[in-house]
Amino acid sequence: MHHDLIKQKVAQAAAILHETGIDCWITFARETVLNGDPILDYLVPGNLTWHSALIISSTGGACAIVGKYDRQMVVDTGAYAQVLDYVQGIREPFLSYMHTLRPHSIAINYSVDSEICDGITHGMYLTLMEMLAKAGLDGCVISAEPVISALRQRKSPAELAAMREAIRHTEEIYDMAGAAIRPGMTEAHIAAFMREEVARRGLGFAWDPRSCPSVFTGPDTAGAHYAPTERIVRGGHVLNMDFGVKVDGYVSDIQRSYYVLRQGESVAPGEVLKGFDTIARAIESARLVMKPGVEGIVVDTAARRVITGEGYEEFPHALGHQVGRFAHDGTALLAPQWEKYGRKPFVLLEEGMVFTIEPRLTVPGHGVVTVEEMVVVTKDGAEYLSRTQKELRYIQADNQ
Amino acid sequence: MHHDLIKQKVAQAAAILHETGIDCWITFARETVLNGDPILDYLVPGNLTWHSALIISSTGGACAIVGKYDRQMVVDTGAYAQVLDYVQGIREPFLSYMHTLRPHSIAINYSVDSEICDGITHGMYLTLMEMLAKAGLDGCVISAEPVISALRQRKSPAELAAMREAIRHTEEIYDMAGAAIRPGMTEAHIAAFMREEVARRGLGFAWDPRSCPSVFTGPDTAGAHYAPTERIVRGGHVLNMDFGVKVDGYVSDIQRSYYVLRQGESVAPGEVLKGFDTIARAIESARLVMKPGVEGIVVDTAARRVITGEGYEEFPHALGHQVGRFAHDGTALLAPQWEKYGRKPFVLLEEGMVFTIEPRLTVPGHGVVTVEEMVVVTKDGAEYLSRTQKELRYIQADNQ
Repeated sequence: MHHDLIKQKVAQAAAILHETGIDCWITFARETVLNGDPILDYLVPGNLTWHSALIISSTGGACAIVGKYDRQMVVDTGAYAQVLDYVQGIREPFLSYMHTLRPHSIAINYSVDSEICDGITHGMYLTLMEMLAKAGLDGCVISAEPVISALRQRKSPAELAAMREAIRHTEEIYDMAGAAIRPGMTEAHIAAFMREEVARRGLGFAWDPRSCPSVFTGPDTAGAHYAPTERIVRGGHVLNMDFGVKVDGYVSDIQRSYYVLRQGESVAPGEVLKGFDTIARAIESARLVMKPGVEGIVVDTAARRVITGEGYEEFPHALGHQVGRFAHDGTALLAPQWEKYGRKPFVLLEEGMVFTIEPRLTVPGHGVVTVEEMVVVTKDGAEYLSRTQKELRYIQADNQ
Repeated sequence: MHHDLIKQKVAQAAAILHETGIDCWITFARETVLNGDPILDYLVPGNLTWHSALIISSTGGACAIVGKYDRQMVVDTGAYAQVLDYVQGIREPFLSYMHTLRPHSIAINYSVDSEICDGITHGMYLTLMEMLAKAGLDGCVISAEPVISALRQRKSPAELAAMREAIRHTEEIYDMAGAAIRPGMTEAHIAAFMREEVARRGLGFAWDPRSCPSVFTGPDTAGAHYAPTERIVRGGHVLNMDFGVKVDGYVSDIQRSYYVLRQGESVAPGEVLKGFDTIARAIESARLVMKPGVEGIVVDTAARRVITGEGYEEFPHALGHQVGRFAHDGTALLAPQWEKYGRKPFVLLEEGMVFTIEPRLTVPGHGVVTVEEMVVVTKDGAEYLSRTQKELRYIQADNQ
């Protein structure tokens, strides 16, 4: 991340601490190339090697304590009022700094519910707690979930601009693919075509390129999270794709559905049209109830009801997730009250959050219809960021 | 990682459990694209999204419990006798499986000392412990450090072959750079030349390409872990580089030192030659004491004594680390007894481990001399994997 974005996020973190009444927030990490805390992208421009503590406090002071060889990289950001370094161990400079700070509450990066806020490993947690106990501060520790969630979900104009650009590229590449797909092509062939276009434009992928895009044609596919196969596109298939790109560190995440016309067919069968129409109505129903202060479960329910109301089986996943530096980037979730979602469906929506809305349903004998749009929560509602797929797209029949 | 390597590592893990007398090993993770446990590379071919448990037991059974959409990817590996999947939450299938397994010891992925064994986040640890308590199994939990360390450090012939290939490319690219560098070039220019050659060969980088290679010319550089700058190579400089590439998921990590001849000079000044000779002797002294059963601290001391015995300041880092899928990949470490290294310097060397040996010293007014070789621990000693830099390399003076 660029130095100015890091400076902006460190300053934003201090303001969030002030707002939430938390004295101090500690990110504690080592060898971050292996299993780095996802928040590190916002705090340092590269990897940290030895035990490192990034300490931000509500009074606006920020201090980094890092190994000798990482010092210059952190100093260069200009985001930290103090940069302390060491050779043998972090304990002495850390305890000495905490002694001057004397916080009453210390937020650290763990969360049962939210993976983006769960960056500290258990071994590092044990080390940190042992040091804090030595300073008599282990009783002050709370989860940094409210701090990290706010920092990631309140998108700045620069962050939103990067996401809009990622969305524009995604839509354009979908248009190119829609024009190029013909019956007889394989899922793998379509994916390769799209990946080449991503490379030609010099973009990154929103997730693992082995399944970005993912492409599912016809009935009896794996359904999601699976690499494109040698399955052949044939007339009568519903073909759906899930795809996103990365621009300046921020991603898009959009799904589109197509119907592959059979010889002599000029429109999809009624059951496919009904399926698509149901998905489109579910998405708009969800968007209409979105605004600051609403729980995600309410939004999920609005869409889920449209699907089940038409007699379809409910989709076996959340209606939508936040998007940011990853495709799944946020605590608040548009989801039902299922065990794996924990408290996420009950976190209130806030202005600046970017969500997907992505219901799905199966049309037996044809395939899975799924559309995924992206929206941003505004002061009193939610606006589409993606162009929105209002009609089923068609793949023309092969004339040979 | 390819399916056959995953099958091999899952089988190897079961054998290590049997050998160490541990009943069962659980890797527990979610949204692994964000902060994945580094061991996951050995267990699954892609990212896991919802709460996932990979359970290997000493009797040789392996079971994966994953979200519905990740099922097919895990089944395809052929490494798991059972693959269970779920939609709403992992609790029920997990508790049900643990009830049939009834282990007396359960290793999980946390470690205060070893970052490669510290993959579980604290929030996921809390979730796992809460479930294990429900099953009356929370008293059985131990650190998986011995299991993970063994799995990563015992390099198979296929793993060693990939590393040898990475080393070969690294040496060749160093040779090309050594022939191309001229006084007046910048560190950034040299690094760009080498990165282009990595790309031309279709290789990966051993670490963040912004500092792979790192290039430090002359006195007063950042010294390590810092991206190449616009600093200009000049006669009289010692120039050192740290560089490695990735082949089939395995990396190399090698440093080389050069002296930049001044106009009319045909050999380096005596103090530079002495510095290089001291480094070369320190490396060989270390290699000679390496063999299975020796503690890393003994190896570190052997090299450190050569440096300080010649009156140089001791190097402010470990003598050497293990290498594998990352540049720093291992628990056993050739290091002094410093706080940040925890118990690592006291872990015994074992056959099949691959280490770097990388002492450094400063020659005032010229720069930092550092050489990093790679060795593999054999049945009764250690053999160089790298070609070894036996003599100081020269950059010719510019004749203009």
